[in-house]
Amino acid sequence: MTRIALDAMGGDLSLLATIHGIDYFVSTYNVSDVSFSIFGDAVEIEKRLSEFTAIKRSAIEIHDTGTNVISGSEKPATAMKHGSGTSMFEAIDSVAKGQADAVVSSGNTGAYMALSKILIGTIENIDRPALVGVIPNTLGKTVMLDLGANTDCSSIKLTQFAMMGNAVATTLLGIKFPKVGLLNIGTEASKGTKILAETYDALSGCKSINFIGFVEGTDVTNGVVDVIVTDGFSGNISLKTMEGTIRYINSFLKSGFSSGFVTRIGYMLCRKVFKDLKDTIDPSSHNGVPLVGLKKIAVKSHGSSDFVGFANAISVAVNLARSSFVKSVEDSLCELSYAA
Amino acid sequence: MTRIALDAMGGDLSLLATIHGIDYFVSTYNVSDVSFSIFGDAVEIEKRLSEFTAIKRSAIEIHDTGTNVISGSEKPATAMKHGSGTSMFEAIDSVAKGQADAVVSSGNTGAYMALSKILIGTIENIDRPALVGVIPNTLGKTVMLDLGANTDCSSIKLTQFAMMGNAVATTLLGIKFPKVGLLNIGTEASKGTKILAETYDALSGCKSINFIGFVEGTDVTNGVVDVIVTDGFSGNISLKTMEGTIRYINSFLKSGFSSGFVTRIGYMLCRKVFKDLKDTIDPSSHNGVPLVGLKKIAVKSHGSSDFVGFANAISVAVNLARSSFVKSVEDSLCELSYAA
Repeated sequence: MTRIALDAMGGDLSLLATIHGIDYFVSTYNVSDVSFSIFGDAVEIEKRLSEFTAIKRSAIEIHDTGTNVISGSEKPATAMKHGSGTSMFEAIDSVAKGQADAVVSSGNTGAYMALSKILIGTIENIDRPALVGVIPNTLGKTVMLDLGANTDCSSIKLTQFAMMGNAVATTLLGIKFPKVGLLNIGTEASKGTKILAETYDALSGCKSINFIGFVEGTDVTNGVVDVIVTDGFSGNISLKTMEGTIRYINSFLKSGFSSGFVTRIGYMLCRKVFKDLKDTIDPSSHNGVPLVGLKKIAVKSHGSSDFVGFANAISVAVNLARSSFVKSVEDSLCELSYAA
Repeated sequence: MTRIALDAMGGDLSLLATIHGIDYFVSTYNVSDVSFSIFGDAVEIEKRLSEFTAIKRSAIEIHDTGTNVISGSEKPATAMKHGSGTSMFEAIDSVAKGQADAVVSSGNTGAYMALSKILIGTIENIDRPALVGVIPNTLGKTVMLDLGANTDCSSIKLTQFAMMGNAVATTLLGIKFPKVGLLNIGTEASKGTKILAETYDALSGCKSINFIGFVEGTDVTNGVVDVIVTDGFSGNISLKTMEGTIRYINSFLKSGFSSGFVTRIGYMLCRKVFKDLKDTIDPSSHNGVPLVGLKKIAVKSHGSSDFVGFANAISVAVNLARSSFVKSVEDSLCELSYAA
C-alpha cells in the first residue's frame, strides 16, 4: 500500500481541485493499493467527498486542521515559525514521521520548500532542495532545474543540480545516460558568467553524467538535451516565458479561427491536431514535480492546477514513492562528495 | 538624403543576405532619398550587385575592405585590437566620422557592441550600450532590454535601461507614456534579488516613466507592459526560450497537419490564420534593433537573418536616422543625472 499525504487546502482552487483530483485519480489512473491521508478542514472535506463516488472511504483518512492554512503570500520564514497546525505543515510532517510515503501540495511554493526542508530534511551535501520541471520538447521531454527555489547559485549548487536532474531523467523519464546541458547565453565556452565557467569545468570532469556543454534558451524545447541545468532565476524566467508564448500563440490562433466561416470549417477539420498539441503542452498533463534533494518525497503541484492537474501530481507522487528515486539522487551525488 | 553604412560581410549568409537585402529594401519599402555605403569585398559585392536591378548605382558607394572580416567567434577584445580594416570596423567608423547617418550589421554582436562603443562613443552617464528587442504581444509590441550585451547589471544600469527602453517605445513604436515593468520571478515586492529591490525603489521614484512594478516571464507576450527591463542574461534566456517555443509549436503543427487527408484539407482552409501568425512572429519582420546608449545610430541585424530581415533592419536604421532617437534617449536620462 502506497500512502499519500495530501494538503487539501493548497492552491488557488483549494478543495475544489484537490478532492475532485483524488476522485479523478482513482477513477482514471489505473493504480491500485493507494491510500490517502487528507489534511484540511474536515467538515468541508466531508462535504466535497460526498459529491464523488470513485474514492473508497476505506482508503481515506481525514486529518482535521480546521481553517488553519498557509496563504499564498505568506513568507517562508513566517510559515516556518507559525506553520504548525496548518494543512500543509501537518501533511509534510506525516511523511517526515513515516506515516505517509509522499506528500502533495498545490500551496505556497516558498513555504512548501522551507517546511519540507525543515521537517523532512535534505540528503547529505544538499543545502536546499531544487524545484524541477518536466517540459515537452520536439523529441520527448526535458527535465529543467532549478525553477525558482534558488535564485543565487554557486557552481557547487549548479553541479548538484546537474546530478539531481540526471537522477530525475533516469528515474522519472527512464532515459539512460541523459544528455545534460548548462543554460547560458551562447554555446561557446567563453560565454557567460564566472560561475558558469566554473560549473562547466566541474561538470566536464564528472564521469557519471553525460555533460554536453552550454545550451541556449532555444534548446529548452528542441530535444538537444534531456536535462537543462540553471539557477532558479533564469529557470523561472525561461519556464514562464514559455508559458506566456504558448498562451500568446493560442490566443492568436483562437481569434484567427473565429474570424470567418471558411477558417472555422478549416479549424473543425484539423482540430485533432490542436487537441494533440493542447494535450502535449497542457500544464495539467505535466503537473506535479518533486522537490529534489529531500530525504523523502514531496511533490509540488502548480498553484493554479485544476483537478486533472492535481490527479497527475498524485500519480507522480505514487510513482516516485514506488521507485528508488531518493536513493538514485543520493547515489548520483556520491561522485560529488568524493570529488569535494 | 539619409546615408546608411552597411557591413556587407556580416551574418551567417553574409553577401547572400546583405546585397539581396538592399535590393529588397529599395524595391519593397516605399522610402526615397536613401544612399548606401557598402563595406566589404568589392569584387564579390559587384558580382552580387549585378544580379539585382532595383538598386540605383548612383545611390551606392562601395568601400573595398577585401576579405578582412570579423568572424562570429572573434572575442570583442581581439576585434578592438585588430579590427581596423575589416568591413564591420570601417562601416561603424564611417558613422563615427559623420560620413554616414547610421550603420547596419548582422555580424558578431560582441564585437559590434565593443567597436560601436569605442568608435561612436556612448552618451553621457552610459557605460555600455544595451541590446534592445521588439517583441510581438497580444495587444501590440513589447520593447525588451537588455538582450545579452550586459550580463551583470547594477541597479543603476537597470534604471538606465528603463529610461532607454522608455525612449525606444516612445520613438520607435509611438507609444505615449509607455508602461515599464521590471522582470522578476514573481510580482510581489519581496521577490527576487537585492539588485532588483534597489532598482524597484529607484524606478518607483522616477517621475518621467510609468513604472508598474515587477513582471514575470508570462508578461513578456501578454501586453501588460510596453517595456520590459532586465539584465542581459535573463533577457537573452527569455528571448531565446520564446524563439524555441515558437519553433516547437510550429514543428508540432506542421507534422500534425501532414498526418492525414482531412487535416491537410482543414489546414488549407485556415492557412491564412497561420500566415498571419507567421508574419506577426517571424523574426524577419522584427529584425533590426538599435544599440541603445550610443551617440549615433548603430542597428544590429540578427546573425541568421535573410535578405527580408536585413531589408527590415535597413528600414529601422533609416527611421531612426530620421527621428530624434538619440536626443530622446539623452533627454530621458537627464532625470537620472539630476537624481544621481
